[in-house]
Amino acid sequence: MSNRVFDKIAIDVHKQTYIRQTNTDQLNEALKMSFLETLKTTADETEKMLDDLLALKNFSAPRIGEAMRYSALGQGKRLRPFFVCESARLLGADHQNALRVGAALECIHCYSLVHDDLPAMDDDDLRRGKPTNHIAFDEATAILAGDGLLTYAFEIVADELTHDNPAVRAKLVLELAKASGHNGMVGGQMLDLEAEQHTGQSLEEIIKIQNLKTGALFHFSLISGAILAQGTVEQFGALGTYAEKVGLAFQIADDVLDVESSPEELGKATQKDADAGKSTFIDLYGLAGAKQRAADLSNEACEALALFGAKAENLYAAARFIVERKK
Amino acid sequence: MSNRVFDKIAIDVHKQTYIRQTNTDQLNEALKMSFLETLKTTADETEKMLDDLLALKNFSAPRIGEAMRYSALGQGKRLRPFFVCESARLLGADHQNALRVGAALECIHCYSLVHDDLPAMDDDDLRRGKPTNHIAFDEATAILAGDGLLTYAFEIVADELTHDNPAVRAKLVLELAKASGHNGMVGGQMLDLEAEQHTGQSLEEIIKIQNLKTGALFHFSLISGAILAQGTVEQFGALGTYAEKVGLAFQIADDVLDVESSPEELGKATQKDADAGKSTFIDLYGLAGAKQRAADLSNEACEALALFGAKAENLYAAARFIVERKK
Repeated sequence: MSNRVFDKIAIDVHKQTYIRQTNTDQLNEALKMSFLETLKTTADETEKMLDDLLALKNFSAPRIGEAMRYSALGQGKRLRPFFVCESARLLGADHQNALRVGAALECIHCYSLVHDDLPAMDDDDLRRGKPTNHIAFDEATAILAGDGLLTYAFEIVADELTHDNPAVRAKLVLELAKASGHNGMVGGQMLDLEAEQHTGQSLEEIIKIQNLKTGALFHFSLISGAILAQGTVEQFGALGTYAEKVGLAFQIADDVLDVESSPEELGKATQKDADAGKSTFIDLYGLAGAKQRAADLSNEACEALALFGAKAENLYAAARFIVERKK
Repeated sequence: MSNRVFDKIAIDVHKQTYIRQTNTDQLNEALKMSFLETLKTTADETEKMLDDLLALKNFSAPRIGEAMRYSALGQGKRLRPFFVCESARLLGADHQNALRVGAALECIHCYSLVHDDLPAMDDDDLRRGKPTNHIAFDEATAILAGDGLLTYAFEIVADELTHDNPAVRAKLVLELAKASGHNGMVGGQMLDLEAEQHTGQSLEEIIKIQNLKTGALFHFSLISGAILAQGTVEQFGALGTYAEKVGLAFQIADDVLDVESSPEELGKATQKDADAGKSTFIDLYGLAGAKQRAADLSNEACEALALFGAKAENLYAAARFIVERKK
């Protein structure tokens, strides 16, 4: 798969550093390794931040603390916190502040998984290879743990520790609430559930659902750096466009993984959408077409960041990673 | 039932206005009518505010809008918005701003009822005389409607329309999140569920559960006026003490109503706590003792507001109403 902007940046930036690597593939590989290292570092820092924020000694009711920790810690790639930290770094915002926003966002992401897995929703027993929250605890506890994580996200963001300017904190809360609420993630979930009632959604319908369900949080993760740094309209616009393209590419790639991987590889059930009668991007594009569309979107995402030049190299690599990942 | 402070205020304030009413009972009755009028006006204004905030045209997914409206509109006494508006009025904060905070608080209160009623939680089919959200819609929709209402509360509060000072908005978000989260309402819910597992809780345990489960939101409703008005430490302290006493009185009165009323009168199932093996204030104080304790707390609540003098007459009347109400 080719990615023109990425290749160009790889050559521009790294012809000095990686002078001995004479072809684009090697340069790309070097950039990918640098990105993966940053992703890992951010994931570790996010884990530490969440571990502190969710310290059991801070809970009036230990069981709710245990259930919230169960679903917030040790989970996933922490792609959203990575985007928060990268957009913050790109615009010169404080890294510790960005980590707090990333942790809050992860609380929202994790609450949504806990509630989605409930018997009344997707009824999943397995999430990332371990029992889902309502299996490990019980349904009532899972509902409350989700509610607790959602609420805590806003407490974290509104706290003075997140930014010393209250206008920044209020803006972060507003945008986070919009991204996760009825015209964002929750609205997307509702449309997604309704889509199970009838087959043959149009491409527009599927894109609308995905933009709300996963795109809105991606969007927040990328503009949050601009909010923290009080960036320009152009910076907000560029990061917003990148987010939109990458979010959709991520979802198409998810549908590709869903048909190409086993439940063991993904750590969760596969082909549930098809079983539920929901249309996927594969139905609309075909497998090869979907892969191409994801690659194109990844490329367009990178193009949107042109104004940042080589400083955005981790975001270029992330856009590529998202469509090439194996889980 | 006697309420010393209330009687004193009634005499002090209204000996001019109600000069023809020569006994305390008549003065009290006049104050009660004035309070009930204010309560009704605030409820109507809150309803209008929520109707606007939850206008169906603003929803990407109509079904989530319908489910959120179903449980947020036309419900209850709106006691919490009343407290927001009264504490705001007492300290000279803008009434429209207070109505927005009251509407947000009502979104939180209503979400908690939707989730509490779910089969995995209290499994109630009836709420205020009509089918609960998951009966009227379905479980998945009820979970999402609760999530949507919770999230929307923070969007409402963080919006510039709530206050032009972002420090006030950030503080409101922080305190609202604390009051409704794992060390507030959600934590109290968890402890309450755990209490069903064993009988014979101590008075301290029951008070802790109630302080978290219902006290925390009462507390927020009363200090929010001081936040909006950027009040003094003394004003925060007085309103906080009033909230604590009134919150506990409210809960004890609830237990009294639970044994003295029929499901038809209350519009919901009664004696569920006793059936679930949970201890109630009646178990610990006896019926007469519980009534006396509620009356004492109501009196202490009023005493805490001494610094506001006659201006707090609606809050004095509210403290009395809470222990004397029939539903």
